[in-house]
Amino acid sequence: MDLISWVYIAAGTGLVALLLALFFATRVLAAPAGSDRMQELSGAIREGSLAFLRREYTWAAGFVAIMAVLIFTLLDWGRPWGTVAYIFGAALSALAGYVGLRVATAANVRITEAVRQGGVHEALPLALRGGAVAGFSVAGLGLAGLALAYLLFHVWLEVNDAFQIISAIGLGVSSVALFACVGGGIFAKAADVGADLAGRREGGLSEDDRRNPAVIADNVGDNVGGVAGAGADLLESYLGSLVASVAYAAVVFGTTGLGARAIVFPLVVAAVGTAAAVIGSLLVRPRRAVIAAALYRGTYAAAVIAVLGVLGPCYWIFSDVEGVDHTLGLFFAVVAGIVIGLLIGRISAIFTSDRYRPVKEIARQSGTGPTLVVLAGLSDGMRSAAFSVLVVAGGIAGSYWAGDWAIPGDGGLYGVTVAAIGATSIFAVVASTGAFAPIADSAGGIAQMSHQPAEVIEATDSLAALGSTTAAAARGVAAGSAAVTTLALLLAWRGATNAASLAAGKGAVLDAIDILEPATFIGLLLGGVLPFLVAALSTKAVSRAAGQVIDEVRSQFGRIPGLREGRVEARPEYTRGVQIATGAALRGMLLPAVLAVAFPLAIGFVDVRALGGFLAGALVSGLLLGMSLVNSGGAWSNAKKLVEVGAYGGKGSDSHEAAVIGDTIGDPFKDSSGPALSVLIKVMAMVSLVFAGAFVG
Amino acid sequence: MDLISWVYIAAGTGLVALLLALFFATRVLAAPAGSDRMQELSGAIREGSLAFLRREYTWAAGFVAIMAVLIFTLLDWGRPWGTVAYIFGAALSALAGYVGLRVATAANVRITEAVRQGGVHEALPLALRGGAVAGFSVAGLGLAGLALAYLLFHVWLEVNDAFQIISAIGLGVSSVALFACVGGGIFAKAADVGADLAGRREGGLSEDDRRNPAVIADNVGDNVGGVAGAGADLLESYLGSLVASVAYAAVVFGTTGLGARAIVFPLVVAAVGTAAAVIGSLLVRPRRAVIAAALYRGTYAAAVIAVLGVLGPCYWIFSDVEGVDHTLGLFFAVVAGIVIGLLIGRISAIFTSDRYRPVKEIARQSGTGPTLVVLAGLSDGMRSAAFSVLVVAGGIAGSYWAGDWAIPGDGGLYGVTVAAIGATSIFAVVASTGAFAPIADSAGGIAQMSHQPAEVIEATDSLAALGSTTAAAARGVAAGSAAVTTLALLLAWRGATNAASLAAGKGAVLDAIDILEPATFIGLLLGGVLPFLVAALSTKAVSRAAGQVIDEVRSQFGRIPGLREGRVEARPEYTRGVQIATGAALRGMLLPAVLAVAFPLAIGFVDVRALGGFLAGALVSGLLLGMSLVNSGGAWSNAKKLVEVGAYGGKGSDSHEAAVIGDTIGDPFKDSSGPALSVLIKVMAMVSLVFAGAFVG
Repeated sequence: MDLISWVYIAAGTGLVALLLALFFATRVLAAPAGSDRMQELSGAIREGSLAFLRREYTWAAGFVAIMAVLIFTLLDWGRPWGTVAYIFGAALSALAGYVGLRVATAANVRITEAVRQGGVHEALPLALRGGAVAGFSVAGLGLAGLALAYLLFHVWLEVNDAFQIISAIGLGVSSVALFACVGGGIFAKAADVGADLAGRREGGLSEDDRRNPAVIADNVGDNVGGVAGAGADLLESYLGSLVASVAYAAVVFGTTGLGARAIVFPLVVAAVGTAAAVIGSLLVRPRRAVIAAALYRGTYAAAVIAVLGVLGPCYWIFSDVEGVDHTLGLFFAVVAGIVIGLLIGRISAIFTSDRYRPVKEIARQSGTGPTLVVLAGLSDGMRSAAFSVLVVAGGIAGSYWAGDWAIPGDGGLYGVTVAAIGATSIFAVVASTGAFAPIADSAGGIAQMSHQPAEVIEATDSLAALGSTTAAAARGVAAGSAAVTTLALLLAWRGATNAASLAAGKGAVLDAIDILEPATFIGLLLGGVLPFLVAALSTKAVSRAAGQVIDEVRSQFGRIPGLREGRVEARPEYTRGVQIATGAALRGMLLPAVLAVAFPLAIGFVDVRALGGFLAGALVSGLLLGMSLVNSGGAWSNAKKLVEVGAYGGKGSDSHEAAVIGDTIGDPFKDSSGPALSVLIKVMAMVSLVFAGAFVG
Repeated sequence: MDLISWVYIAAGTGLVALLLALFFATRVLAAPAGSDRMQELSGAIREGSLAFLRREYTWAAGFVAIMAVLIFTLLDWGRPWGTVAYIFGAALSALAGYVGLRVATAANVRITEAVRQGGVHEALPLALRGGAVAGFSVAGLGLAGLALAYLLFHVWLEVNDAFQIISAIGLGVSSVALFACVGGGIFAKAADVGADLAGRREGGLSEDDRRNPAVIADNVGDNVGGVAGAGADLLESYLGSLVASVAYAAVVFGTTGLGARAIVFPLVVAAVGTAAAVIGSLLVRPRRAVIAAALYRGTYAAAVIAVLGVLGPCYWIFSDVEGVDHTLGLFFAVVAGIVIGLLIGRISAIFTSDRYRPVKEIARQSGTGPTLVVLAGLSDGMRSAAFSVLVVAGGIAGSYWAGDWAIPGDGGLYGVTVAAIGATSIFAVVASTGAFAPIADSAGGIAQMSHQPAEVIEATDSLAALGSTTAAAARGVAAGSAAVTTLALLLAWRGATNAASLAAGKGAVLDAIDILEPATFIGLLLGGVLPFLVAALSTKAVSRAAGQVIDEVRSQFGRIPGLREGRVEARPEYTRGVQIATGAALRGMLLPAVLAVAFPLAIGFVDVRALGGFLAGALVSGLLLGMSLVNSGGAWSNAKKLVEVGAYGGKGSDSHEAAVIGDTIGDPFKDSSGPALSVLIKVMAMVSLVFAGAFVG
């Protein structure tokens, strides 16, 4: 068997994942779609989601066009293939978001209908499959796309700089992800928080009450934020880790001998992980088990299969490289990555699931009012971030050691990049469980809006509660793996910069990036600043728009006669809420995108060492702040659910009021500001990697 | 005039500041102390404060004893003088806290009495003087202490390693500051938040209602946290910047020629700053002007005087060093530092004063409930931190450039250390305005508890409101200058490490601290973690203890007949609240202290480069997180005050309720967790500096 066969296998595995997504999609679409009223509501949600996606993608396309021009004019390699690859990456990301959204907006109403007909156990497979479509299209598009790019540029076209061109794909994916994640997140949370607060203020409507004029916007938000936005984020981490590892290997080991193998290996690990995820997802038999346990089991099964499955290919590729055996060390590096992913997911689960002490403690504090709820949630978020980063640090140490053992010298850092792939290898499962939550949420919304009986609403609520725990773990894994991915990108960037400056006859300018050199240290401070700034901007965008939604709801209750009483002829103007959220999202996503590109470019052209400090500073502050926001939000969300099922006074009590305040504060944290940071740090590293040559040229 | 004369002048200036503090203290004590009832209350607050201080210092003394043993056994220089210096530093810090506390607890009741007799304009000078005692004793003890240490070790005893010994003084100050700041902060906010929430829940008592069993604890907290704790923090920054600059100069330039001048210069800058503060404080004539403006004017006046005053000595010292003139560059470095301090104070004021948009916007959001209040406050906190760090980065760039211009080569980094002194030089003013707030708060408490007429309570409230704005600016300056101080300490640490490893024949081990070397990067991550962990721990300590205070208050209202109705014979058991807060404070301050010492020591002995990454990571994350916590808290506090004076519904409205929730969430942020971080990063840098030789020995 030839080395190149592995690339075909990777491409094939990606296609299998896509076929599985297609199969799940057809199964979902084949399910009955419920009454006319339900289909009308679901149609409104779908239309709204697609309309927003179109506008979001239009803006993103403008951004991509500008970047494409920059790439074409500033970079002297791979012309025009680098630009083509960049646009290809952007298209991949847009496609992944579109497919996931399309199926999710069809799945929601079918889940509601399934619950109506057969209860929660009838509906669960549908919800899982709806989520899996998003998950497997992310993994499939990423893997197949990159493997095809390898074949196209390196094998068929035999372009020089094939692996720099491949890194441009990563930047394309990142560019669209930034818009999808930040824009979708702001839309979702402006509508969610606005609908929730306005509903409560106007006579205690629930957020999904049909009379609430923001209710359609809220459900649209679940889909554009939770499905399209989160999917783009995961695809970015997935592709980012592959690009980093491939680029690092190509720069440091060259493209022949050990280098050729080191370049192919990342694709193989990703393929094994995706195959493991396919098997794992088929192993989950939710009908017969506690649901949450089944979901976790799927993840662990996939992880174990991935670990076992990667050993064979690893041996095949590395057991005899000019007489030297590198197998075990690199295998351990992959395992270190998988363990990092699982441990971070575990930490997130412990801090955000209602089965553990932190969330129980927050719920207990709700008896004293909102203050201690908020303080406890924030402090738990910071604690969980601290623990997660310790895990990341341990994983880096372990994978460096393993890589260095395998290939003394440059192998240590290659091990770190390989660990990043390990951490993202079973992302198909993670993305599936992540997309499960918004789909179930939206199904619950449709159940309420179409006035289903109490037991149907209760059953869809229980699905949503389940989703909110698994989503928290998925967000944690995404944020944690983003850190390793970003570090891998940094390493690739340093390699690319040194290679370019050596080629330009300037020596290796990044031989050492001295942290106490003033430029580097100032870079470090600036890098630390950016996540705080972006989190502030996106939180501000959400809270300002939520305020406008509240005003709008109030005004509609004032001017539409019979709306408050729920008369049938009194129809709220749902589109106003959608418009407000859309405006906020489009305005709010622009500045972060510009900052994410302008800062690294400007600093890179002034001083590449300062850029090293900048990227490291952004990584540290973005990772810690992002994880703590995400986990605080998850903890509050589940503490509220704990109170809602009856703890400390239950629904309608003062405790509930306090818990709801925590939950609404956490909404933008966990679904917009927090995830935005993990995209931010990856985009900035990706920009630096792609433009590395231009900075020193 | 001899170079040494400047040291005598510095010592003299320190003594003048101490005399001024003494003069202010006697003036405060000479004022009438009010009725028996008021004196009884004030006595209870004083006794409680001193009792807590005794216990806190006892624990700190244990810690200091252990550290003294470590210093004596692990360090091979200056024995036993290093240990003596360390203990001397610890004593300085304890003394500064004690003096400030003593006068503050006497000033409070006298302010209430002055308001009773002559209104707010009669009371203001008293409040200013009470604060100034704390401010000038901090500056005086720091300056005189360090100048005397210089004379003692370098001139009179002629000890080798005199400047390493002096750095041990810094560590002593830091050790006690950590306890005073963290312990005092936790005590203050556990009592404050607990009293506030419990009072509201139990029939709408205000936090200063005599019937509230937590009221004495709350007032004790103002003093042990706001006066003793904050004073220790400021003294630490002040001394830290001096120690860093002196140590850096000694290591890099040696102790003769240019070196001798560069060592003395920091003391001169500090002396000029203190003299300027003395003059500035005498220029403030609060009787005839808007009070806040007068306080700001004092600061600006001091800054201008310091800038003008430093030029002469700078010329004298540096205009002819072996024929070369270094004057202008180093003068600019000092100015850069002063400008950093002023700008950061300005940014804090803009984000936390009710005269600017951010706070007004938070107050406006209060109409929609607590959620958007909290989100707006958090996002403004992050934004203000981002801007402040940009200022710090600019200041570092400017001072590096100026220093490098003055002394090409090593002068750039010396310029940065000099800027740190500039930023802390007029700390006497900053500390005075900072201590003003808790004193005024406590005066208000006594007014309420002793049932003064409404206009007296209103007048003391207006003093407290003024204090809360100036305190926010003071906290901002403290946090921002901590960053420059810490960087200066890092530079001194690197110099000391290289010197020690050169002396040990190992070459300069820290020639470059490569940020992408795995050990350094892991250090960077660990360093980033620690501030999040410490903030989480101290927030948790506050919220847990506040919950206990609430339970205790409820229980007293249940079991003490007539308490709720306010019958005279129904006396609440004030001591229980004090006990709960004391327990929380003592338990809560131990772990941060241990972490702050154990982490740098452990990492330093394993890998000094990792320690470089660690300190830089802690600085970036601690600075950003700390500033954002401090300014969020300040903004909420003043937004609440804005609502209380009638905006958006005023006292008792739903808006007020929402604003109070923001305020209580911000209490631990601004007064315990946030300030704890600025102490944390300084302590860790100081530990590293003092033990630098041991790591490479």
